[in-house]
Amino acid sequence: MDISKLSGVIPPVVTPLDKDKKFDKESFAKVINRMIDAGIHGVFVLGSTGSVVFQTKDNREEIVKAADEVIAGRVPLLVGCIDTQTDRVIEHIKVCEKYNVDAVVVTAPFYALDCQDNIERHFRSIREATKLPIFAYDLPVCVGKSLDRNMLVNLGKEGIIQGVKDSSGNDVNFRYLCMTNEHYGHPLRLFSGHECVVDGALISGADGVVPGLGNVDPNVYVEMWNAFNKKDFDEVKKLQDKAAREMLITACTKQDMGFGSGVGGFMTALHQMGIIKTNYLPEPTIPLDDSEAKKVAEILKKEGLL
Amino acid sequence: MDISKLSGVIPPVVTPLDKDKKFDKESFAKVINRMIDAGIHGVFVLGSTGSVVFQTKDNREEIVKAADEVIAGRVPLLVGCIDTQTDRVIEHIKVCEKYNVDAVVVTAPFYALDCQDNIERHFRSIREATKLPIFAYDLPVCVGKSLDRNMLVNLGKEGIIQGVKDSSGNDVNFRYLCMTNEHYGHPLRLFSGHECVVDGALISGADGVVPGLGNVDPNVYVEMWNAFNKKDFDEVKKLQDKAAREMLITACTKQDMGFGSGVGGFMTALHQMGIIKTNYLPEPTIPLDDSEAKKVAEILKKEGLL
Amino acid sequence: MDISKLSGVIPPVVTPLDKDKKFDKESFAKVINRMIDAGIHGVFVLGSTGSVVFQTKDNREEIVKAADEVIAGRVPLLVGCIDTQTDRVIEHIKVCEKYNVDAVVVTAPFYALDCQDNIERHFRSIREATKLPIFAYDLPVCVGKSLDRNMLVNLGKEGIIQGVKDSSGNDVNFRYLCMTNEHYGHPLRLFSGHECVVDGALISGADGVVPGLGNVDPNVYVEMWNAFNKKDFDEVKKLQDKAAREMLITACTKQDMGFGSGVGGFMTALHQMGIIKTNYLPEPTIPLDDSEAKKVAEILKKEGLL
Amino acid sequence: MDISKLSGVIPPVVTPLDKDKKFDKESFAKVINRMIDAGIHGVFVLGSTGSVVFQTKDNREEIVKAADEVIAGRVPLLVGCIDTQTDRVIEHIKVCEKYNVDAVVVTAPFYALDCQDNIERHFRSIREATKLPIFAYDLPVCVGKSLDRNMLVNLGKEGIIQGVKDSSGNDVNFRYLCMTNEHYGHPLRLFSGHECVVDGALISGADGVVPGLGNVDPNVYVEMWNAFNKKDFDEVKKLQDKAAREMLITACTKQDMGFGSGVGGFMTALHQMGIIKTNYLPEPTIPLDDSEAKKVAEILKKEGLL
Repeated sequence: MDISKLSGVIPPVVTPLDKDKKFDKESFAKVINRMIDAGIHGVFVLGSTGSVVFQTKDNREEIVKAADEVIAGRVPLLVGCIDTQTDRVIEHIKVCEKYNVDAVVVTAPFYALDCQDNIERHFRSIREATKLPIFAYDLPVCVGKSLDRNMLVNLGKEGIIQGVKDSSGNDVNFRYLCMTNEHYGHPLRLFSGHECVVDGALISGADGVVPGLGNVDPNVYVEMWNAFNKKDFDEVKKLQDKAAREMLITACTKQDMGFGSGVGGFMTALHQMGIIKTNYLPEPTIPLDDSEAKKVAEILKKEGLL
Repeated sequence: MDISKLSGVIPPVVTPLDKDKKFDKESFAKVINRMIDAGIHGVFVLGSTGSVVFQTKDNREEIVKAADEVIAGRVPLLVGCIDTQTDRVIEHIKVCEKYNVDAVVVTAPFYALDCQDNIERHFRSIREATKLPIFAYDLPVCVGKSLDRNMLVNLGKEGIIQGVKDSSGNDVNFRYLCMTNEHYGHPLRLFSGHECVVDGALISGADGVVPGLGNVDPNVYVEMWNAFNKKDFDEVKKLQDKAAREMLITACTKQDMGFGSGVGGFMTALHQMGIIKTNYLPEPTIPLDDSEAKKVAEILKKEGLL
Repeated sequence: MDISKLSGVIPPVVTPLDKDKKFDKESFAKVINRMIDAGIHGVFVLGSTGSVVFQTKDNREEIVKAADEVIAGRVPLLVGCIDTQTDRVIEHIKVCEKYNVDAVVVTAPFYALDCQDNIERHFRSIREATKLPIFAYDLPVCVGKSLDRNMLVNLGKEGIIQGVKDSSGNDVNFRYLCMTNEHYGHPLRLFSGHECVVDGALISGADGVVPGLGNVDPNVYVEMWNAFNKKDFDEVKKLQDKAAREMLITACTKQDMGFGSGVGGFMTALHQMGIIKTNYLPEPTIPLDDSEAKKVAEILKKEGLL
Repeated sequence: MDISKLSGVIPPVVTPLDKDKKFDKESFAKVINRMIDAGIHGVFVLGSTGSVVFQTKDNREEIVKAADEVIAGRVPLLVGCIDTQTDRVIEHIKVCEKYNVDAVVVTAPFYALDCQDNIERHFRSIREATKLPIFAYDLPVCVGKSLDRNMLVNLGKEGIIQGVKDSSGNDVNFRYLCMTNEHYGHPLRLFSGHECVVDGALISGADGVVPGLGNVDPNVYVEMWNAFNKKDFDEVKKLQDKAAREMLITACTKQDMGFGSGVGGFMTALHQMGIIKTNYLPEPTIPLDDSEAKKVAEILKKEGLL
């Protein structure tokens, strides 16, 4: 597939677990098939939403293999190759090369503190190690540092990276990234990780979105994308407001648990909707309890998802 | 070895690289032997200083195996089993169980955001998976969150963890950790990661220190430890001031590169002193250049280390 | 004036200085008159852009008095009563009550660390001290803490505050603030402090914007507001992209100086355009030098402002 | 008084309030006299502990006047002239010049973001405006930025500032500040704001300490200072551990309220001990309630202070 035209809605797929806390391929397939049936434009597995950093190397291969089999070429497959440093990232990319993976998604190195020069070298070293298209993933809340937008566009112009997934939470920076990218002929495909201000991201110039909530409600994002392309902004806003209300399923835990509240909310919703078998989360994350799950269910009902 | 009496100076060993950027066991042995000859009380490999997060699983085993062979039981061997989440940490611990490892050192999970409840569960799950003594490693600058001191002492009282390596940079919290630990009968061995205020940490009640600078100058820390035990505080201060001056080798890079400046400074010093073969750092970290290395050399000369 | 219908473009006016670093009323009048001629819908003086925290109590009165005289009732006048704690804020509000001030703008208390309960009490105490409409000003980058959106809407429902100026930089939170406010009957007038993603803020439901760049180019924001109300989103985006390019005048200093780069950029642009007499900034802020001013001028020329 | 020899214990005095929330001079006098009787070496009013940023300009003069009258030259009087920007700071200093004030204590400017160049200019402008000795106050938790240690020593060498009160919480930086200051002939008097690791600060080379807890228990700090000067480190540690246990009075509120928990704890302790008339805090800070005050009382009893 030609990744240089990639656009639209590419949800980051969750990684469901069975009663024994093992990867549940059957549920995983149901989540993906439901997305594709809804009209999404690509699938991103092993992102933060896909519990990537909880997976060992072997687990990851199992998940990539499963994704490849389930998707069977119907839409592009992007895989998060997210790890602490360059060599470990390359190890994951080498596994991806064995399957029908259309692009890999890579963050800056993390844990060991770094400067932008080293981050740039990280992407260059990875480019030398693979022919797969690379999306840089800007996620300061997890990684502890941001990706400089000028560095990104420069890497795009040189062909080192082919796109960016922006989850920086910095809407000003994202607009400037879009403008700079446009100024240089649009070398990068730019995707926003937003669930709640997709309308703003699209107006800013995003080529598409990667909404975790798309696991639960892929339709709202596909419809928003279509309405945006028809310039029906009243409809865009209506759908975005609905998605924002639905996104409150990620705020149902008694305390803020970060990943446990967010991905935990998605898992619990999918479990409530009967799409996956459990709402379990990988160790050491405690899943939502019954009273928290009830709150999720109430939101789903109010929005017609249950 | 009985880890419950562990005290003194336990440097976190660097992981030297050869010209091909491969692990240089010969240099690694020289660094360790020099430390043991100086009288240090234990060796900590695969810590942050040991480039742990840059290493793949296979690399890590090679390093643990080498450390075991070199140390040959002369002093306790602690190994950092540092990774993003529980299952990956356990995978590294299982490798340690094959060698003469006296304790493993484990941080809170990182990348995926978490709450203290999940962090506590992380340590409990690891305890269930191994019989090895566990040191909790508090390193918020890399991990993004701190370890609650009451949780630590509670885990100590229950036998879940056996010690703490504190690199929190929070001297008030460390004092309270020492006091609380003492109040409950000293269930935890408490080590400070300080290079520059070891005197303060020891007065606060630390059982010992884990100074990265101990790679370059193990003597100054061994002497400080001995002077402290003789209550010769004038000597303690004199030695600590000397160590602080030496520590400026980690501030010789033109820009602050974090790991690259710190561990890069240690590597360059050891290279200048002829103890290791290169000052290379693992990808993507750019090593100190010649003008930066010259600054390191000047400090070493001034302090009589070169 | 009925503040409950306030909407549109309300720039935060700069406070120009003369050669002796005294308040330059003549230049101040020119900046305001130019804005009103461009069709802006209100004027906000003594905001962060108006150097409010650099001003003594007496200076502030001079500026409020001047603003009142210059505006002469043509548009609503909002005044920042921004100070460290409640009593000092009230002191400034009492001065405002002597002039034709339509609303005061108040941040959370700062310097002494506080919790949301105390912040809420701050707004309640101020309400008891004045009859003037109050806008809460959410500016975590200066104040060090954010205003909880549920607290804000609750205070709005009770009539404690009448509006919010949001400069949180958190677009997700702003959308939820708009949605919650709408859900409860729109008790608060909601303004975004954005310069660069005004389109996104308006789609999210903002009643208007408070762009510092409106000092330099009020027209681009008035035109954007009009285009938005005509649902001409192609025009909105075109204008927003232009404003974002113009906003780069705040990134012309050799080092990032915060206020000095931002307000310094506005001052220098107005000086270059011949609207104010100097580009001086209040002590201790160093103004842009000639080479930096040249960069500002280049941007202005490219955008047809010079 | 010759501030160039200042050393020892200089508590930052609280500002007690009466039933009407007005400044209670009588209680203020009792707090100060009790400190002087205990042997402290100076008094610091209108620090963060003295609720400085809650006070209007007139209130501040009242407090300085009262301090001058009460102290009557028995010990040096330091006054916090803490405000957002240079001109406002100078306004407060001009008031100090009317009384027997031995030195003023000044933070970096705050609220408007700034760079180190502007901070340096802030201190230089203040030096031009007064002949009073100036202590730079490093308090990043309130001010939002740190004071560069090399800048501080340079300003000391030039005679711009005469001392530093360090409340940075950064023990490594404080040690380097002490060493650099020593290297250049000790131009600055260096005080630590520590309550809990005074022993470490003194070993690092501090000339003295400014402990807020000294309001409640001045003796423990005077005794610690004396023991340190006699090189009785067992006694120093014993006293420091006692002070740290007493400091837990600042952790008795149900939620962390920052200033409200800390200074609120001191106020409540003094009220429980019958030294001041209320435990009220300036608006908008909610004072400790009865259940919280009970916890404070228990700690005081355990430590023999009640």
